[in-house]
Amino acid sequence: MRLPDLRQAVCDANKALVEHGLVTLTWGNVSGIDRASGLVAIKPSGVAYDEMGLEHMVLVDLEGQVVEGDLRPSSDTPTHVALYRAFETVGGVTHTHSTHATVLSQCRVELPCLGTTHADHFMGTVPVTRQLTADEVAEAYEANTGRVIIERFTAADFPIEPAEVPAVLVAGHAPFCWGRSAAESVKNAVALEACARMAVLSGVLTGDPTRLEPHVLKKHHDRKHGPGAYYGQKK
Amino acid sequence: MRLPDLRQAVCDANKALVEHGLVTLTWGNVSGIDRASGLVAIKPSGVAYDEMGLEHMVLVDLEGQVVEGDLRPSSDTPTHVALYRAFETVGGVTHTHSTHATVLSQCRVELPCLGTTHADHFMGTVPVTRQLTADEVAEAYEANTGRVIIERFTAADFPIEPAEVPAVLVAGHAPFCWGRSAAESVKNAVALEACARMAVLSGVLTGDPTRLEPHVLKKHHDRKHGPGAYYGQKK
Amino acid sequence: MRLPDLRQAVCDANKALVEHGLVTLTWGNVSGIDRASGLVAIKPSGVAYDEMGLEHMVLVDLEGQVVEGDLRPSSDTPTHVALYRAFETVGGVTHTHSTHATVLSQCRVELPCLGTTHADHFMGTVPVTRQLTADEVAEAYEANTGRVIIERFTAADFPIEPAEVPAVLVAGHAPFCWGRSAAESVKNAVALEACARMAVLSGVLTGDPTRLEPHVLKKHHDRKHGPGAYYGQKK
Amino acid sequence: MRLPDLRQAVCDANKALVEHGLVTLTWGNVSGIDRASGLVAIKPSGVAYDEMGLEHMVLVDLEGQVVEGDLRPSSDTPTHVALYRAFETVGGVTHTHSTHATVLSQCRVELPCLGTTHADHFMGTVPVTRQLTADEVAEAYEANTGRVIIERFTAADFPIEPAEVPAVLVAGHAPFCWGRSAAESVKNAVALEACARMAVLSGVLTGDPTRLEPHVLKKHHDRKHGPGAYYGQKK
Repeated sequence: MRLPDLRQAVCDANKALVEHGLVTLTWGNVSGIDRASGLVAIKPSGVAYDEMGLEHMVLVDLEGQVVEGDLRPSSDTPTHVALYRAFETVGGVTHTHSTHATVLSQCRVELPCLGTTHADHFMGTVPVTRQLTADEVAEAYEANTGRVIIERFTAADFPIEPAEVPAVLVAGHAPFCWGRSAAESVKNAVALEACARMAVLSGVLTGDPTRLEPHVLKKHHDRKHGPGAYYGQKK
Repeated sequence: MRLPDLRQAVCDANKALVEHGLVTLTWGNVSGIDRASGLVAIKPSGVAYDEMGLEHMVLVDLEGQVVEGDLRPSSDTPTHVALYRAFETVGGVTHTHSTHATVLSQCRVELPCLGTTHADHFMGTVPVTRQLTADEVAEAYEANTGRVIIERFTAADFPIEPAEVPAVLVAGHAPFCWGRSAAESVKNAVALEACARMAVLSGVLTGDPTRLEPHVLKKHHDRKHGPGAYYGQKK
Repeated sequence: MRLPDLRQAVCDANKALVEHGLVTLTWGNVSGIDRASGLVAIKPSGVAYDEMGLEHMVLVDLEGQVVEGDLRPSSDTPTHVALYRAFETVGGVTHTHSTHATVLSQCRVELPCLGTTHADHFMGTVPVTRQLTADEVAEAYEANTGRVIIERFTAADFPIEPAEVPAVLVAGHAPFCWGRSAAESVKNAVALEACARMAVLSGVLTGDPTRLEPHVLKKHHDRKHGPGAYYGQKK
Repeated sequence: MRLPDLRQAVCDANKALVEHGLVTLTWGNVSGIDRASGLVAIKPSGVAYDEMGLEHMVLVDLEGQVVEGDLRPSSDTPTHVALYRAFETVGGVTHTHSTHATVLSQCRVELPCLGTTHADHFMGTVPVTRQLTADEVAEAYEANTGRVIIERFTAADFPIEPAEVPAVLVAGHAPFCWGRSAAESVKNAVALEACARMAVLSGVLTGDPTRLEPHVLKKHHDRKHGPGAYYGQKK
């Protein structure tokens, strides 16, 4: 895919998140990759969807370094590029905080296959990652988020094929989905939320929900509001 | 009903699914029949609702063979035609994955009559089918889906009149509804979802939801993503 | 209020039901009264909201007899006029099947005052009527629905002032609301649904929901689909 | 911020409540302060959002006295100005009855941090105030609502920094949020509702909900409908 087409496809896919009701405020981002050049187009950080245009898309390389664009890329960029490096058939990645998939992530409850709607998109259970350690949160948090996702799919005792189950629930956080293109990753995010909603309605959650670990609470608050905040654009 | 009118009515009925919030992505389809000619107009498979026009409707006969149209008909066509053959007063059929009716189908919980909203549309309990066997899934899956629906309505010990209860919950899958026309089958799908939502809120679900049988999981994933996939249009 | 103004106010109030998300299909109706002439304007039966105009409003007297209009009035007209006769300060009546208020009605669970949102509109618990007897359902069903509402508000042991609690949950059916005007009755229906939703989320429902009595099931199905059906307009 | 700009910002922020689905009818209000002059712009009481324009914003001083404007300010004005006086870094205040945050307030259940969505906006648990006494409700109710909020954040045993947790759940009532500007207080109200919804879905509520204290029920009903009603505009 030519880079101008990729930027357009990624911009359209980000806007599709809004149409599908998957995002609140600026909580979500989609990227797409051009495998020939190894370049990734991604949403800028903290920009409102209704003010976002093609010209705001940021191009980064597979290390997450900005190659083109005036704005900072999504703060989740290191997670996206980790997935592109590890999962070679993936062409697009979507991250949302869609309500029910996020509830499962927060409660650390995997999404079992309860019906054919799920089977049409995910070949079995959508897994939950392990929680990051305090060290993994303190240093290179977003890259380590990618690492625990990959760790889950390549587990020796129960590996999962990312093309068969194109979604994961990050413990305490929210889902990441992927697909052969940015648009397909959004469709999988739509399917994940629909299946998660049906699972919650069906009663997969039981008992007292898990509280977020204090070191993750502090990390997330500080990266947005602390002295070294790096979420959003420079003021 | 003249065939051009039938195609228009079926196209309109499919678009009405979107207006009523009954479909996500392309998960749903409506058909209508002209009893004089025995021809059925139905939505094409895997086509987005906002790109779908009158010219995309597919005409099939009562065996599900395409008589007119450039696109593949819905992969659920064999279920639709089985219902038209068995239920002679039916003029339209709607299949959706609407959230709450699908939750009941997945949990294999029938929909009891809890109030007059239900009574206005369904003369008693909306039943759940039995699960298909592995053999029924392996061969002629969609036709066998029609078969278990009909089996439920014609059960010797507790037959149900399809004109009195124009809906069914297919175990592990989702609902099918019908009516004297395509438009009426959509109205029944709207009523079913509303009644199912109220039933779920009222607490008809209890305990751990049923997991989908592995052979159905594999079947649904393969018919969409496997080497012999037949969902959607040819690439 | 002059009659042309009343018709306009009632037409607008019916359309406001749709804007507030209180109606599905044609399940709801609003009326308003001109106390000087004793005439009531009400929605016609079974007409779609988006096709309904000022010219379709029906004028009836306080016995429910049509005084002006080409269409049949709402099948719930005898309930509306019973309320106008009994509650002299009422200027408008709204009936909906809004989801959560209907769930409470079906489960025969009264709506307690759980917070100030409720207190702003209803001076205490919103009551549930008793269920109608088989005889009351068989003959003059809709008038008897009005009768059990009035019976509840004038109960010797615990009377309720209709101006202080302008809403009721009809057992097995759905809510009726009222106010000084048609518009105010719609606002009370909006507030009732919001409070009912919060109550359901808070856990006021417990245990297995009540099934609708078979004689009410048959009555409702027959009045819409049976040989003597009187819901909707003549075909 | 110049006063004309403040009025515009406050008007825009009030309308943003509607776009974000946080208000039903007129249940919500946003204000903003110009710290240089000590003047606060706030929504007028009981005015419908779709009829509200820049010219309707009311200017009050830090005692809540009207300085400019033809309409009565929101009946919650004394709560807003109490927060501005106590919390010096606050530039905007939002009050809503958004569904899930209100459910938590009514049930007097604090909002724990269950995931990173929460951590991005609130540095820990969002607290519930104590219930007002009968005396506090009888006299200067809205000012006392501000007082119990401030009391909770300045509690000797567990003080909370209002800039770190810019939201509170008022027992039996609903949430108040704040931020550096009117717009930011709205964003915090959006985040609060999203997190509250996820918490309710996750099961933080248990058991029978608390009934509103009778003296609060009477107070709220009377301030809107009683002989000395002061909610809304003069008739």
